[in-house]
Amino acid sequence: MTNFLSIKNFLVQLSILLLCLNVSAKDGYNLWLQYDYIQNNELRLAYKSNISNILALGDSETMQVALNELQLGLSKMLGTEILSQKDLKGENLVIFGTQSNLDKKLIKKLKKELEQINNEGFIIKQIIIKGKKHIIITGKTDVGVLYGVFNFLRIIQTHKSIKNIDVLDSPKVDIRMLNHWDNLDRTVERGYAGFSLWDWHRLPDYIDSRYVDYARANASVGINGTAITNVNANALILTPQYLEKVEALANVFRPYGLKVYLTARFSAPIEIGGLKTADPYDAEVINWWKEKTKEIYKRIPDFGGFLVKANSEGQPGPQNYGRNHVDGANMLAEAVAPFGGIVMWRAFVYSEHDADDRAKQAFSEFVPYDGQFKDNVIIQVKNGAIDFQPREPFHPMFGAMPKTPLMMEFQITQEYLGFSTHLVYLPKLFEEVFEADTYRAGKGSTVAKVIDGSLHNKKITGVAGVSNIGNDRNWTGHPFLQANWYGYGRLAWNPHLNSGDIAEEWIRSTFSNDTHFINPIKEMMLNSRETVVNYMTPLGLHHIMDTGHHYGPGPWVENLSRPEWNPVYYHKADKNGIGFDRTNSGSNATNQYAPEVADIFNNTATCPEKDLLWFHHLSWDYKLKDGNTLWDGIALKYQQGVNEVETMVHTWKSLEKYVDNQRFNEVEMLLNIQHKESKWWRDACLLYFQQFSEKELPEGVEKPIKTLEYFQSLKFPFAPGN
Amino acid sequence: MTNFLSIKNFLVQLSILLLCLNVSAKDGYNLWLQYDYIQNNELRLAYKSNISNILALGDSETMQVALNELQLGLSKMLGTEILSQKDLKGENLVIFGTQSNLDKKLIKKLKKELEQINNEGFIIKQIIIKGKKHIIITGKTDVGVLYGVFNFLRIIQTHKSIKNIDVLDSPKVDIRMLNHWDNLDRTVERGYAGFSLWDWHRLPDYIDSRYVDYARANASVGINGTAITNVNANALILTPQYLEKVEALANVFRPYGLKVYLTARFSAPIEIGGLKTADPYDAEVINWWKEKTKEIYKRIPDFGGFLVKANSEGQPGPQNYGRNHVDGANMLAEAVAPFGGIVMWRAFVYSEHDADDRAKQAFSEFVPYDGQFKDNVIIQVKNGAIDFQPREPFHPMFGAMPKTPLMMEFQITQEYLGFSTHLVYLPKLFEEVFEADTYRAGKGSTVAKVIDGSLHNKKITGVAGVSNIGNDRNWTGHPFLQANWYGYGRLAWNPHLNSGDIAEEWIRSTFSNDTHFINPIKEMMLNSRETVVNYMTPLGLHHIMDTGHHYGPGPWVENLSRPEWNPVYYHKADKNGIGFDRTNSGSNATNQYAPEVADIFNNTATCPEKDLLWFHHLSWDYKLKDGNTLWDGIALKYQQGVNEVETMVHTWKSLEKYVDNQRFNEVEMLLNIQHKESKWWRDACLLYFQQFSEKELPEGVEKPIKTLEYFQSLKFPFAPGN
Repeated sequence: MTNFLSIKNFLVQLSILLLCLNVSAKDGYNLWLQYDYIQNNELRLAYKSNISNILALGDSETMQVALNELQLGLSKMLGTEILSQKDLKGENLVIFGTQSNLDKKLIKKLKKELEQINNEGFIIKQIIIKGKKHIIITGKTDVGVLYGVFNFLRIIQTHKSIKNIDVLDSPKVDIRMLNHWDNLDRTVERGYAGFSLWDWHRLPDYIDSRYVDYARANASVGINGTAITNVNANALILTPQYLEKVEALANVFRPYGLKVYLTARFSAPIEIGGLKTADPYDAEVINWWKEKTKEIYKRIPDFGGFLVKANSEGQPGPQNYGRNHVDGANMLAEAVAPFGGIVMWRAFVYSEHDADDRAKQAFSEFVPYDGQFKDNVIIQVKNGAIDFQPREPFHPMFGAMPKTPLMMEFQITQEYLGFSTHLVYLPKLFEEVFEADTYRAGKGSTVAKVIDGSLHNKKITGVAGVSNIGNDRNWTGHPFLQANWYGYGRLAWNPHLNSGDIAEEWIRSTFSNDTHFINPIKEMMLNSRETVVNYMTPLGLHHIMDTGHHYGPGPWVENLSRPEWNPVYYHKADKNGIGFDRTNSGSNATNQYAPEVADIFNNTATCPEKDLLWFHHLSWDYKLKDGNTLWDGIALKYQQGVNEVETMVHTWKSLEKYVDNQRFNEVEMLLNIQHKESKWWRDACLLYFQQFSEKELPEGVEKPIKTLEYFQSLKFPFAPGN
Repeated sequence: MTNFLSIKNFLVQLSILLLCLNVSAKDGYNLWLQYDYIQNNELRLAYKSNISNILALGDSETMQVALNELQLGLSKMLGTEILSQKDLKGENLVIFGTQSNLDKKLIKKLKKELEQINNEGFIIKQIIIKGKKHIIITGKTDVGVLYGVFNFLRIIQTHKSIKNIDVLDSPKVDIRMLNHWDNLDRTVERGYAGFSLWDWHRLPDYIDSRYVDYARANASVGINGTAITNVNANALILTPQYLEKVEALANVFRPYGLKVYLTARFSAPIEIGGLKTADPYDAEVINWWKEKTKEIYKRIPDFGGFLVKANSEGQPGPQNYGRNHVDGANMLAEAVAPFGGIVMWRAFVYSEHDADDRAKQAFSEFVPYDGQFKDNVIIQVKNGAIDFQPREPFHPMFGAMPKTPLMMEFQITQEYLGFSTHLVYLPKLFEEVFEADTYRAGKGSTVAKVIDGSLHNKKITGVAGVSNIGNDRNWTGHPFLQANWYGYGRLAWNPHLNSGDIAEEWIRSTFSNDTHFINPIKEMMLNSRETVVNYMTPLGLHHIMDTGHHYGPGPWVENLSRPEWNPVYYHKADKNGIGFDRTNSGSNATNQYAPEVADIFNNTATCPEKDLLWFHHLSWDYKLKDGNTLWDGIALKYQQGVNEVETMVHTWKSLEKYVDNQRFNEVEMLLNIQHKESKWWRDACLLYFQQFSEKELPEGVEKPIKTLEYFQSLKFPFAPGN
């Protein structure tokens, strides 16, 4: 009777479970930390035969969260409660803790491995203690162990074997951070996933549980820093009223190894300090920043440092006082140096007073300062010389400042790539940048080696990604754009990773381990970046988005106050052809690259066609490698982009049975939007350029249904992120 | 062996279930539609013995969603899958459908009941068909049946018996709507729960699943209309670009009986119509609105109509052209009349050119127009004559326009009541307003009878509530403020309901049916409104909030451009005393009430002390009924407010075991904020008023730790909702 009742009770629970899962579990909130129950009996039993309980060594806050995560993940995946025990009873324990918590015998046994990892690295290894088999997860620091725990969970999430497990890894880059362009009113500049996560009004007393999940997600991919405020900065963040709130966030993030950074508005000494100047040579200004820094470190002992956008797009900076970037950066660097902080000084500068090609200005302004910055300054450089386009050649500054640490700035949020409604897998773009060869120390001098510091032995290394995260339930607005946060983190950890491998990890952790699903989805993701290039800016075209909000096509825009804000500045289409001549016959931007690279770009025969119109102005009749004229080639690329989105729609629809309802429907709706908008791009751009080429659309390209005037009339005054 | 495995499998599922519930189920998203599993075996079996399967009669969209809801709710609560069947097999079916889908015998049997309900009413009744017992849920319309289904579910959610069930109900008010002050950029004026639900950028192609859950929640309490845009309106909402998006929302809401209304910017004919004027006498203007209305109804055949804020706080209106409110409202009313639409014209007007007491201006401007509005116009009047204060005497317009329908406007969002961090149960406030006696048709002429139309036989009746809903995961920012949405809906359905009964329904549906939890929480909720009055504006004080954002105390503010925007205008504190003389010796606002009411308010002996300083300027030494001087009485009330919040904190902490972790922690943090802020209110106001009274704080009132200057220095430039 008891037995019968208990079975009945399970039936009841089971039905509730199914409802519960069905109703709310797959809204995307859990990101790649789904920890889905392993349905495959054989596999699940294999894991269980190697995992009994957990033994945590040490009880720091970080060890606590590592334990929670292991218990949650293993219990859900194995379908049984995995308990934590306090001693070495039994076998098949998952033991984790820092090196300092291991006994001497064990340290000796792991000596070789411990020598191979750095401070944030980890070891996961099957070991025998007193004749009994266990799995040890260890490292030199708490956070190293936490990364090991997440790595171990990922191995199981992706259904890899843990038999004789022996994994060792360390991050190749020191600073791996997110830049949030979040304003104090919770709007997010270039944010397309709702509004800022930071509920400033209710901080410090209300701690949204989402802050914890944000930190978990970052730690799971090795992100160790977050600049929580917009680079177009507000000085108020440095007042006690706000620092108290920042402190509360830092306290939440600390156990996860996530350091807080703030953006420093250069004029803060005036705006909130009551000084008359912000001149970096002024003794009062220097002192103000020192005192302010002390105040911050008193609240947040592990504060990371300042991120600064100065003398760029209207932001104040040292040049307002006749000083230069070195003066400004070094003044702040001195303030944070005693506390181990750093200054990330952005190189994204171009001036309305400089008539030179905008693509050249950052290099011209910064490279002469090589070697003049203090040791705790790192220059943050966007991946390309213009501004986060669907495709740009790598920034010429990479490799050109051997005595100065350079930090990569990627944009994860899709300002120029369809906002949060276009599925674009960005690690493919990041990988392309990292693999680019600067030739600065001979062939093989890749951007990855500049960034990981190996090319010129840099003292600090870093990668920043402009966050695509908002308060949308699924964090990124589009379930697939979670992969860009994930993949960014993985590449920041190791810029030499393969974007395809990362995609597969993500698909397995987020959706399914079924290869019938994985293979087509992985292919779709890997192709998606080229697809957006095709339907937006093929063959090296760039910055032809509509103005201000950058939503949709606007190649016709020519009325903005600064010439280099107008799309016509970038495509230079006329009766004779299209493209920006940056060779030695033009702006000579190619000259900023190493001679080997300049040669490749200068010559149409060697310049990759994907970058063709970035570097060359060519006639509409110019013959592409496939024999098509340039006009036909452009038109066919736009059409190809549209066709590829159509294929994505079909691929997704064919995989309905592998995906929960909610995410399936969401992605379906979003792909339909992407399809609609890819046609908008194709039609608007081709109709516009056709005015100059005066040629018919080639066969295979669909005729636009609407007119150019219609496209030009579209207005989006409330486009997000503006 | 099979048996063993299956038990094991249940164990596995059970543990996942527990994790699943523990991790994510109680984030508040499900509101009062938790449908918690009924743990009490006896009770659950009693329900199950009366409920087998479901039989839906009819297959309209509304019947579909009713079926889904019944299946979801019953299956979760009873812990077993409740199936839908197509015919009358078996017994104990829950049968639902409109009258027109019932067979003649059944209609005859229900004749008496059907005569008693109106078009949106419902009947839930145990019936015998062919000797077999069933439960029938029916009504005259689809939406009536849907309301019946939600009522049936509520009966089970609140653990009431369904034995011999026999329930019959109809709404007492026609239009029961939410007003969203949501802007097209997704900010929400006076919104404190994140940002707007409406993701305009991704509409119409992306349908957030939240839109459906919003409609479900509204239907569950009988709300049948939603004005989705701010009364401070943007004409763009009336352009095809936006109407396409509105149409998409209307399509989602329609099955739930939820009609869409829009706010009409009076100057729209100029701004988007290209006309030179918006004069309601101009033929082109009249025609423009007619054509615009036609265009809207073509997309949304059940469009509800327009909500208009005109010639109020800078909004354009008919007075810009020398016309009046009647001219403006009737012009729009004629445009929507052919389609069955209505115009809700707001009476919230006061002028910077009118030196008279702001409290009198709406009455003075509108009452003379009684009887001049078209039949499909309803005047929307705020509950009090100033602006949604913690307490106001009822608006003198109620009862004063016997020939004009008046609609109640409540504010559910807490602009003046602590934003979304203060637990205030507003149905207590709403009930106080509804119960107020206008004496306009003799004693017993309550505001409820004005609003339900029974006092003067009104042709249209309505209640509007300014929404407190945003994109925070739990909808309202604070788990307990969900009760204000719920309770508002229930009172809009029937203004004669008891706020305590509503609180109990809500607690049971949202948290627990355990009386150990219900009783103290219900008491806490019912007291909470008086508590906020005590620590903010006791004894009839009003509008002494800080300026602009209305966050925190600001009784000292006196520098705003319009006198009636300054707190000093309202409290008039000086050496001689405090309070606004609105008697016949002062502004004579009392004269706008019926003589019986005016007499009560005019005389300090009869004026309720809760309204004392609203109507009287009294000396600091004035003796209150309890023997205290006015100064001591004010101070003691502030202290009492603080003490009461302290009690709320203790009550909540003592009930931890009855609540899931997430909601418990959230409410605890929020109550701590409320406690902190109640002390801020007490200290800031008493220090300020003490300057005039020049008296010591009485015994029992805590001495402020900070100075008045400190409180006056506080600035909140990014307070939400501003």
